[in-house]
Amino acid sequence: MMTLTSKSTTTTGQYLLDRLNSLGVEHIFGVPGDYVLRLDKMIEEHKKIKFINTTRESTAGYMADAYARLRGIGVACITYGVGINISNALAQAYVESSPLIVISGTVGTDEFAQHSAMHHMINKSMTSHGDTTQLEIFKHLTIDQGVLDDPKTAAETIDRVLTACLLHKKPVYLELPRNMVTQPIEDPQSKISIQYPQSDKKALQEALEETKKALQSCHHPIIWAGHEILRYGLSKSLLNFAEMNRIPVVSSLLGKTVIDETHPLFVGLYQGEMSSDHVKEVIKKCDCIIIAGVLLNDFETGFFTTKIDQEHHIIVDANSLSIGNHHYKNVSLIDFIQGLEKIKLNLSHPPFHTPKMANLPTKFIPNGNTHTTIKRVFECIQSHLQPSNIVVTDVGDCLFAGADLILSHNAFLACGYFASLGFGVPGAIGAQIADPNRRVVAIVGDGGFQMTATELSAAVRYKLDPIVIVLNNHGYGTERPLIEGTYNDIVDWNYSELPKLLGGGIGIKAETEKAFEDALTNAFGQRGTFYIIEVDLDKLDFSPSLHRLGELLGKLVKGK
Amino acid sequence: MMTLTSKSTTTTGQYLLDRLNSLGVEHIFGVPGDYVLRLDKMIEEHKKIKFINTTRESTAGYMADAYARLRGIGVACITYGVGINISNALAQAYVESSPLIVISGTVGTDEFAQHSAMHHMINKSMTSHGDTTQLEIFKHLTIDQGVLDDPKTAAETIDRVLTACLLHKKPVYLELPRNMVTQPIEDPQSKISIQYPQSDKKALQEALEETKKALQSCHHPIIWAGHEILRYGLSKSLLNFAEMNRIPVVSSLLGKTVIDETHPLFVGLYQGEMSSDHVKEVIKKCDCIIIAGVLLNDFETGFFTTKIDQEHHIIVDANSLSIGNHHYKNVSLIDFIQGLEKIKLNLSHPPFHTPKMANLPTKFIPNGNTHTTIKRVFECIQSHLQPSNIVVTDVGDCLFAGADLILSHNAFLACGYFASLGFGVPGAIGAQIADPNRRVVAIVGDGGFQMTATELSAAVRYKLDPIVIVLNNHGYGTERPLIEGTYNDIVDWNYSELPKLLGGGIGIKAETEKAFEDALTNAFGQRGTFYIIEVDLDKLDFSPSLHRLGELLGKLVKGK
Repeated sequence: MMTLTSKSTTTTGQYLLDRLNSLGVEHIFGVPGDYVLRLDKMIEEHKKIKFINTTRESTAGYMADAYARLRGIGVACITYGVGINISNALAQAYVESSPLIVISGTVGTDEFAQHSAMHHMINKSMTSHGDTTQLEIFKHLTIDQGVLDDPKTAAETIDRVLTACLLHKKPVYLELPRNMVTQPIEDPQSKISIQYPQSDKKALQEALEETKKALQSCHHPIIWAGHEILRYGLSKSLLNFAEMNRIPVVSSLLGKTVIDETHPLFVGLYQGEMSSDHVKEVIKKCDCIIIAGVLLNDFETGFFTTKIDQEHHIIVDANSLSIGNHHYKNVSLIDFIQGLEKIKLNLSHPPFHTPKMANLPTKFIPNGNTHTTIKRVFECIQSHLQPSNIVVTDVGDCLFAGADLILSHNAFLACGYFASLGFGVPGAIGAQIADPNRRVVAIVGDGGFQMTATELSAAVRYKLDPIVIVLNNHGYGTERPLIEGTYNDIVDWNYSELPKLLGGGIGIKAETEKAFEDALTNAFGQRGTFYIIEVDLDKLDFSPSLHRLGELLGKLVKGK
Repeated sequence: MMTLTSKSTTTTGQYLLDRLNSLGVEHIFGVPGDYVLRLDKMIEEHKKIKFINTTRESTAGYMADAYARLRGIGVACITYGVGINISNALAQAYVESSPLIVISGTVGTDEFAQHSAMHHMINKSMTSHGDTTQLEIFKHLTIDQGVLDDPKTAAETIDRVLTACLLHKKPVYLELPRNMVTQPIEDPQSKISIQYPQSDKKALQEALEETKKALQSCHHPIIWAGHEILRYGLSKSLLNFAEMNRIPVVSSLLGKTVIDETHPLFVGLYQGEMSSDHVKEVIKKCDCIIIAGVLLNDFETGFFTTKIDQEHHIIVDANSLSIGNHHYKNVSLIDFIQGLEKIKLNLSHPPFHTPKMANLPTKFIPNGNTHTTIKRVFECIQSHLQPSNIVVTDVGDCLFAGADLILSHNAFLACGYFASLGFGVPGAIGAQIADPNRRVVAIVGDGGFQMTATELSAAVRYKLDPIVIVLNNHGYGTERPLIEGTYNDIVDWNYSELPKLLGGGIGIKAETEKAFEDALTNAFGQRGTFYIIEVDLDKLDFSPSLHRLGELLGKLVKGK
C-alpha cells in the first residue's frame, strides 16, 4: 500500500526563518527574552541561520542594519516592550533606506486574553488579545508591519512584509505571539519574488532620449551618485554608463563608495560648500548633472549650499525623476539607470577633472615622536588600507574626515544622515559578520565609543577581528565649534584597557605618529584578534571638513 | 525722573528651567546634541540646576527615572531623532508611574520651514514647520506632551504638561525648537499648583464607613501596599492607620519599602505563590484585605496566583476604588488613605504574623573558602546594610533575591514590572544624585551589567560612590529554567577590570564567602570611590524566589 504524500505543512516560526534564509539571511542579531525564547530556540536549531547575541537591543539593530547594507537584508530579533530600545536603529534604517527587519516576540494571544497586565507590556493601546503599543510606535519607523497572530494568514503576512522591505529598502516589523511560533500552518511553497513596479515605457523612453540630448549638447557632464544606487545594486550599470561616455562621477556622503574611488572617473565627494576645492571647481564648471539616488538633505548638500543650477539637470531617485523643470511619472530608478547603461554617445569631452586617486599618498612616513594629529592619522590609515577592507565610521570627525579616504567599491558604512552616535562599533561587527573575508576598520570618536564600545564583546565571542581606531579628542568635538560648554567634555577613559574587561583583543594607546604607524602595522598584520587603537588628539584638532561643517552649522545652532 | 518697572519677561528656555527648579529639579540628565545645545548652555548657566552628562540617551532616562522616584520629579534632556533612544525609559516610567519629564531640542521652526530634510529628522509624519514623528512616538509613552513652538502659549503649555506629570505620576514630553529657547515671553509669574481632583464627599464618607465596618467585623485584617502609596507620598498616612489599628502590612514588589521593613507590622512581600511560606500563611488566614496602590500585574501577583477572595476586600488605586463587588466613583487614593488615617477602631486583634525583621540575621560569619552562593551573598549583603542605604537592583535574580532584603523606608529601586534589563547601574547613579547622603548599593546580574555598566563613567566624573555588586552567573540566569540554549550564555567579562577602563573606582572579584565579606567591608568602610564587586556564582544557582518564578513562568514560555 502506498502512502499518499500529505500536503506540506510547517509552522509560523519555521516558515518565517526559512523565508528569511531563502532571501540571504544567515545571521539574526538579538537579545533573548521570555516572549521570544521559543523563536530563539528555533533559530538555534535552524541549520542555516545563526543567532548572534548582542548585549542590548539597540546594538542588535545597528548590526543588522550594517549587515543589511552589505547583504541586502538584515534581521534583528528582540523581546516585547523593552524591544523598543531598537527604535533608533529603525529610524536610522528608515531614513537611510536600509532593508532591516525587526522581529519581536510577544505574549501569547491566549495569555493576553486572560490577563493583559503582563510584564514588558505597555498597554497604552491594546486590543482584546494583545498590547498594540509597540506596533503603533514601530508604525512610525517602518514601511510595513505584520502581527502573526493568525495561522491562516501568517505566511501571506510574512511574504507581504518581507516584500515591502526589499522593494522599498526600508525597515519592516513583524510581531510574533509566543504561542504562534510552533503553530502549524500550511506551507504555500511559494517563493517571494520581488516585483519592482514597471515603468511607463513611453515615459522611460522619452526621459532617456531627453537625457541623451542633454549629454550631446553639453561639454562637461557629471554624475552625482548616492546611496540608492548602492541599495538597489545599480553601481555596475551606472559605472558602465559613465565609462562608455567618459563622464566623471562624484558621490554623496551616504553614497560613498558607490563606485571604486580609485577609478579614474571618480572625482570625490560632493557636499556643496563642504566639498574639497577641486570638487567644487568641477561642479562649477559642469554644464549637465545627473543626480542619481541622492537624498538632498542638509548633510548631503553641505547645508543646502550645493550648486545644481546647471544648464541641464536630471534628478532621479527611488521615488521620482525630473529633468530640468518637468517631472516624469512612473519611471523607476532601476529602469532609468539600466536605460542609461545602453546610451553610448561617442562624446569627445576633454577630461575636466583630476581623479581623486591622484591624491592617494604613496607612503606614510611617520615623523617620529610628533604628536598625533587628525590629518596625519588619516594619512596613515589611508596608507594601510587595502581594497579588501571595509571602513565603518561613527559620527563626528571620524565621519567627516573619514569621508575623504579613498576606498574601494561598497567599502564604507556610516549613518551619514541620521547620525546616530554609537553606530561605529556595532556597525563594524555587523559588517564583518556579513562579509567575513573583508577586514573591517572602524573609526570612532570617544563620544561614540563610550556609547557602544562594549559591543566588542561579540568580537570576543564570535572571534571577529575589527581594527577599531578611537580618535580621542576628549569630548564631543563636533559640538565645540557650535556652542562650547562643559557638557561637551566627557570622561577620559583608558580606551585601550577595554580588552582587559572583555577578555579578548589587543589595546594600544598611540600618542605619536610612530606609535600609531606601528600599531596599525601590527593590527593589519594579524588577523584573528581585534585591536583597539586609541589615538590621542588635541581637543581642538578638527579636520578641514569639520571646520567647514562648524562654520555652516554654527550659524543655525547659535541663532542670531 | 523715575523709571517705571517694566512688565516682567523671561524666555521660553528660562521659564522652563525656573519652573522645573521650583518643583524640586536640581539636576538634568542628558546627552548634548546640536538641536539642544542652546538649552544645554542655558542649563549650564542656571544657578540652581546642574547638567549631568550621560554616555547615551537611554541611561539618561533611567537616571532621571530613579531621581524621579526619590524626589518626585526627574528630567532628561536629549536632542532630536536619536532622542528616541530614550523610548524604553519612557515606557518603564509610564508603566511603573514615575514622574519623568523628557525634554527634546529640535530643529528651529524657521529652519524646518525652509528645509525639512535635516539630519536626525525622521519626517515620516510632519507639519510645515516641524517633524512630528518623535512626538507621535512619545504620545504612546507619555500622559501629556507639548511642543513649545509658540512664545504666546509656551508658558501655559509648560505648566499644563508639568502639572499632568505630577498629578498622574506619569512621564510627559516637551519639545523645544532651538530658535525658541531664547525667545522672550511674558512671565506669567504664576506658580504651578498641583490640584488633585476633589473626591465626591458622600462617596468618600460611605467608602470609609464601609471600610471601618469591615475592619470591625473581621479578625485578621491586612494591608497590601503598593508603589502608588510611595509615588503619592502616602506612606506615613498609611502607616499611621496601620499602627493605630495594629494591622499588619505586606508590600508589593514595585511597592517594596513602602514602609520601613524593620517595622514590627511588616510581614514581607506578597506576590501570590512566589511569596515566602509565612506571607502565604498570613494571607490565607486574613479575612479582610486592603489593597492600596498595587498594580495587579503578573509579577505583583505571582503570575495571577494571589488569593484575594477574603470575606472583605477593599481595592484602591490612583484610578478606582472598589469594596467587595461594588465600585465607588470619584474617590481619590489620596483622600481615601488620608481618610483611613483618621480611623481608630480600638480593635484587639491578636497578632497573627511574625514580623519580617524576625528574620534579620544578626551577623554574617563567612565560611572561609566556601565558594559564593546566591543565598549566602544576600545574607552577607543584608548584614552590611544600614538604614541609610538605598538598594537599586537590575532585573533577574538580583531583583528576585533582592526583594527579600529587609530595608528601610523608600530604600529600594527597581523596575519590578516593566523589567528593563540594564536599569541597575544608571538607576544607582540617579539615586545617589537625587539623595547624595545615602550610600547606594546596586545589585546587578552579568547580563544587565553588560548593557549599561559603562555608565559608571558618571561616577568618575561626579565623584559618586555606589557599591555595585555584580552577580556573575554566566548568562541570562532567569531564562535558563525557561528554555535553555546557547543564546542564554554571555561572554565572561572580567567585570572587576572596569575601573581601569573608566579611570576611577575599585574593582574586586570575589569567589569565596571570605573574599566577598572582605570586599563589602572595604566598600562600606570607604566613601568617595565606587566599588565593583564581582561575585562568581554557579550558572544554575538560583534563589528560592527565582525557582518559584521559573516554575510559574516556565509553563507560559514553553507552551503546551
